[in-house]
Amino acid sequence: MKAWQFTGTHEPLVLNEVPDPTPAPGEVVLKMTAAGLCHSDVGVLEDEGWLSMLAKLPITLGHENAGVVEAVGDGVTDYAVGDRVAVCPTTAAGAPGYGFDGGFAEKMAVAAEALVPIPDEVDDVYGAAATDAGMTSYAAVITNGGVKAGDTVGIIGLGGLGQIGARVAVLAGATVYVAEIDESAWPLAEQIGAAGVAASIADFEGVAFDVIVDFAGFGTTTAQAVDAIRRDGTVVVVGMGRLEATISTKSLILNQCNLRGSNGGSKEDIAGVYEYMKTGQLKPETTTIRFDEIAEGLERLHRGEVKGRLVATFD
Amino acid sequence: MKAWQFTGTHEPLVLNEVPDPTPAPGEVVLKMTAAGLCHSDVGVLEDEGWLSMLAKLPITLGHENAGVVEAVGDGVTDYAVGDRVAVCPTTAAGAPGYGFDGGFAEKMAVAAEALVPIPDEVDDVYGAAATDAGMTSYAAVITNGGVKAGDTVGIIGLGGLGQIGARVAVLAGATVYVAEIDESAWPLAEQIGAAGVAASIADFEGVAFDVIVDFAGFGTTTAQAVDAIRRDGTVVVVGMGRLEATISTKSLILNQCNLRGSNGGSKEDIAGVYEYMKTGQLKPETTTIRFDEIAEGLERLHRGEVKGRLVATFD
Repeated sequence: MKAWQFTGTHEPLVLNEVPDPTPAPGEVVLKMTAAGLCHSDVGVLEDEGWLSMLAKLPITLGHENAGVVEAVGDGVTDYAVGDRVAVCPTTAAGAPGYGFDGGFAEKMAVAAEALVPIPDEVDDVYGAAATDAGMTSYAAVITNGGVKAGDTVGIIGLGGLGQIGARVAVLAGATVYVAEIDESAWPLAEQIGAAGVAASIADFEGVAFDVIVDFAGFGTTTAQAVDAIRRDGTVVVVGMGRLEATISTKSLILNQCNLRGSNGGSKEDIAGVYEYMKTGQLKPETTTIRFDEIAEGLERLHRGEVKGRLVATFD
Repeated sequence: MKAWQFTGTHEPLVLNEVPDPTPAPGEVVLKMTAAGLCHSDVGVLEDEGWLSMLAKLPITLGHENAGVVEAVGDGVTDYAVGDRVAVCPTTAAGAPGYGFDGGFAEKMAVAAEALVPIPDEVDDVYGAAATDAGMTSYAAVITNGGVKAGDTVGIIGLGGLGQIGARVAVLAGATVYVAEIDESAWPLAEQIGAAGVAASIADFEGVAFDVIVDFAGFGTTTAQAVDAIRRDGTVVVVGMGRLEATISTKSLILNQCNLRGSNGGSKEDIAGVYEYMKTGQLKPETTTIRFDEIAEGLERLHRGEVKGRLVATFD
């Protein structure tokens, strides 16, 4: 079968002919239907720092994967041939494209414990996109932020993750205020259903925020969130725009603020994303390409030419 | 009756003759048995900044109070004459010594909703001391830190609150490591039952902390705690040694650290302190004086001459 493989930093991906995978005990083999392209794939291509995270060379990249079960290994009872599934990249089974060959190939072998069923109402492209950007945003807002109906929520940063996070909060029944420094993104905030939009979370005077999720993570944004949160409220930091934040411990203590980092997510978070996608109300922007365009797609991503999530489809 | 009253900043407390209080509906009148003296009382005497927090002038100070119920107002059913009780300073009823006349007097009137029964095994001095230093330490470690048996806990700062916090964590069944920059306090850490003591929480290499409580709050101490915590662990900040902390958001996110401020506590926290005091295993250091020595006691406190909690007794 064909697989887009990484051979070394600063080298373009190579479309290699490799043996078809077979399922080890506890594994399934998927026939891929969709695979998302991510900025961290660009990172692997460009930055030697990622080399230590790769289990082998060459390795097939691709960590946002959807497919159909084509074969099941010994001991797999929860999944059967024909099931539509996605692969959670954060289980104990490891990350596809890093710990083992990923989904930029016609097929991949993966531990059944990493699988999440894709509902009939969710297409393959969304099935794949939910596993990274979707999962991370949902985990930050719902699992770590604890956002629920009736909450007043601040979302800082309306980039790829922030858009999904803001929409998830609206769909959860929260009143959502968006802080985004780029005014050209303000109409999108209204489209998502935000009750208000401003340049900074500090601009919403008189709003008592139950939860603020900082998708920007520029230090100052986190500090402003700790100042703006209500007593016993929660501030979640998911963005790493800067690696440090100088926060007011006075605000942290007097507000009894709960400040927490959110990193990745779980199979449950992916399933949560699908619940909203099923209803047709969570529709993150995507751009699709064909499998044979993956190397070119990563270059477009690197040049900043892609709108929304870039997903390759197989046919 | 006699009452030590505050009349204005930079003025000594005045021992005034005032009318005996009577219980309004929902209130009780306490015959005081013990009243703790606190650094914030010194603050009221010295710093105009506190004036705005006082409901009236003159006002009787004293916010760490124990007494015996002497009279009950209409509608009070949970307490009866003769009950030994303490006063929680953080309920909706307001803070004694700030919102209404406090316990530096022979008697005080207070809403029944602020009362906590003192167990027979706990004396009046501990009954009073538990309501501020005890409550705040217990709330930070148990209620906000969630410390439980089997946890590995770091306590930063072995001052008045940190000593109680460390001991509470030991009694809760945790393995406790103490970080204290003043080496002369290290023997106390061992006495409390700590498994180890060092100058900085960063010195405990290889220890996976479930919870770290920062009683120092010197900015760097909080930053070190966020770096040292295990994934999904909790860092509680209670001390305000400095008003800012520059933390690594990278550590916060990658560790999925739960960083929270802890401010004060509740009646439940006071009751929790009593549970440990009852067994005789939580014995914070105290110095006792007589009621008529309260003004002089505050001066000793101001000069830093007091060891442990200073409590006035009535006889």
